[in-house]
Amino acid sequence: MSKNEFNIAVVGATGAVGQQIVRILEEKNFPINELRLLSSKRSAGKKMTFQNKEYTLEEATPASFQGIDIAFFSAGGSVSKALAPEAVKHGAVVVDNTSAYRMDENVPLVVPEVNEEAVKNHQGIVSNPNCSTIQMVVALKPIREKYGLKRVIVSTYQAVSGAGLSAVEEMKSQTQDVLAGKDVQPEILPVGSDKKHYQIAFNAIPQIDKFQENGYTFEEMKMINETKKILGDNQLAVAATCVRLPVETGHSESVYVEVENGSPSVEELKEVIANGAGITLKDNPAEQEYPMAVDCVGLPDVFVGRVRRDLDNEQGYHFWVVSDNLIKGAAYNTIQIAESIIKLGALS
Amino acid sequence: MSKNEFNIAVVGATGAVGQQIVRILEEKNFPINELRLLSSKRSAGKKMTFQNKEYTLEEATPASFQGIDIAFFSAGGSVSKALAPEAVKHGAVVVDNTSAYRMDENVPLVVPEVNEEAVKNHQGIVSNPNCSTIQMVVALKPIREKYGLKRVIVSTYQAVSGAGLSAVEEMKSQTQDVLAGKDVQPEILPVGSDKKHYQIAFNAIPQIDKFQENGYTFEEMKMINETKKILGDNQLAVAATCVRLPVETGHSESVYVEVENGSPSVEELKEVIANGAGITLKDNPAEQEYPMAVDCVGLPDVFVGRVRRDLDNEQGYHFWVVSDNLIKGAAYNTIQIAESIIKLGALS
Repeated sequence: MSKNEFNIAVVGATGAVGQQIVRILEEKNFPINELRLLSSKRSAGKKMTFQNKEYTLEEATPASFQGIDIAFFSAGGSVSKALAPEAVKHGAVVVDNTSAYRMDENVPLVVPEVNEEAVKNHQGIVSNPNCSTIQMVVALKPIREKYGLKRVIVSTYQAVSGAGLSAVEEMKSQTQDVLAGKDVQPEILPVGSDKKHYQIAFNAIPQIDKFQENGYTFEEMKMINETKKILGDNQLAVAATCVRLPVETGHSESVYVEVENGSPSVEELKEVIANGAGITLKDNPAEQEYPMAVDCVGLPDVFVGRVRRDLDNEQGYHFWVVSDNLIKGAAYNTIQIAESIIKLGALS
Repeated sequence: MSKNEFNIAVVGATGAVGQQIVRILEEKNFPINELRLLSSKRSAGKKMTFQNKEYTLEEATPASFQGIDIAFFSAGGSVSKALAPEAVKHGAVVVDNTSAYRMDENVPLVVPEVNEEAVKNHQGIVSNPNCSTIQMVVALKPIREKYGLKRVIVSTYQAVSGAGLSAVEEMKSQTQDVLAGKDVQPEILPVGSDKKHYQIAFNAIPQIDKFQENGYTFEEMKMINETKKILGDNQLAVAATCVRLPVETGHSESVYVEVENGSPSVEELKEVIANGAGITLKDNPAEQEYPMAVDCVGLPDVFVGRVRRDLDNEQGYHFWVVSDNLIKGAAYNTIQIAESIIKLGALS
């Protein structure tokens, strides 16, 4: 007998993404029987409102997952590593929003518009991809389906909220200080746990997450590896340069692709993109219409614009992809994954 | 008989670039006999100090160039179109910082580290390239010289000062307004003379200069065409996406190149770049060392970092180029051109 209402846990409910998960569950009127809002010991006892009812946050422990059907994790990789297996033991399906399990071959990495069926293969955990990857693969999907894809080169323009609420606060107070002519004391960005911290106000920092041995940052490797995994194409050439900007919310991406078959006109390619699931095409240069970070905030769409043909490679195209990194890039996709799990009968 | 001191005119001396030209002439102790600071009618009568002497700005008219040896133009394309030929008629060599003559086949387009000898071919006017082009070709030069170049794909992260002092003021007051929760009324950016204006505070705008018929902006076409002209290579494939950021000064660029010969190691390529004229390599991921806009302000160097090999194409490399768009990107390069003209005996 399939259930109609589910017991849901949200781990990290007070964080930048966790708050959005709770808000979207509410907005979508998700079929919830019981809701448990979980947090670190530090935030336990705080109150949050959900559908006019007050909830008290509880500290997340292994026992928190008893009776839970779906557990959303968004409290950092170490929490997921410690507690997601406990939730699975209790029979929950975990939808994990951290990088902890994304490249695990037993864990599906899912963007429902792109590879929804993959949720069926889960062994207790389904991973939500990195924010910058999600919006890009949504845009790539219809292009790849119609023309095939050989090559992707992306340079990102990423918002500070991707680094958490404290990073947003740092950016705002730092911006005030710079405008007032005061010295700044960076403490969080580019990476809270890294050695050095730099000014983000009125700057562009070419580092997101820590550097790997090969000279790429972990964020860049996430975009490269996750894109191949989600599209199920290890032969696809993907390159990424990830840059943090003084933008609160909304990641932008400058994407270059080479298609495999044919050489569609820009008009044809735009139509294919516009018909892609989850995409809103906003592309009219004559009227200066193109997607921008400040316009995407709070919306679940992936916005695509500035579609144009490379001037040298007749199978090359450039475009600009913008989406709210906390919504489609995180919370919204997470909840879509849960909906796919329910729809495809893939609860544990 | 070659002169040792020169009569110099600066047209647009009160502008963002003009002020830097005057400052650098002073700093370099440029061999000046007579200095004329010229402006629009509106700014005429204003005072500026040069080497402890006060100068009164005069309105630029054809007669202003009588006796002038070198005239620096930085007051917009229409002023250059109207007055540069007049300056040439009076025997001056014009170093023009606008886009008015850059693609004119009779006008050398010069970055002294790259194509200094081209100044010898002038017919009265030498053009200073676009800011975003200059810093990129300085970085490309040593790579191309050693390995050849097939392909360049750049995405830019450009500062607001490239759009003038009023755009900087707009960004600052808009930022204050956003932080105070007030509505903003954009009036200048992305392009003062275009139809629509958008918020730059905490945003990224994928438009610099007006759109062309082919879907590229004029800024993007400048980067594409000027790069080919300066490097003297019409076969080079160049693609550009130009984006304006809430950064006051300092353009950053995410550059992908494919070399023609060989497949140098990253260490070898870094050494070649570090030995390039005008370049400072700042590249040590282990210590989080890379160039950033806020660190380049006021410096004439082109900073290069984040050099790494493409993971799919063994002749492909990615790097990050940062320079002060008002200094090497404009005023400093302009004065270097004048020095090259003098050094190579190319005064009229």
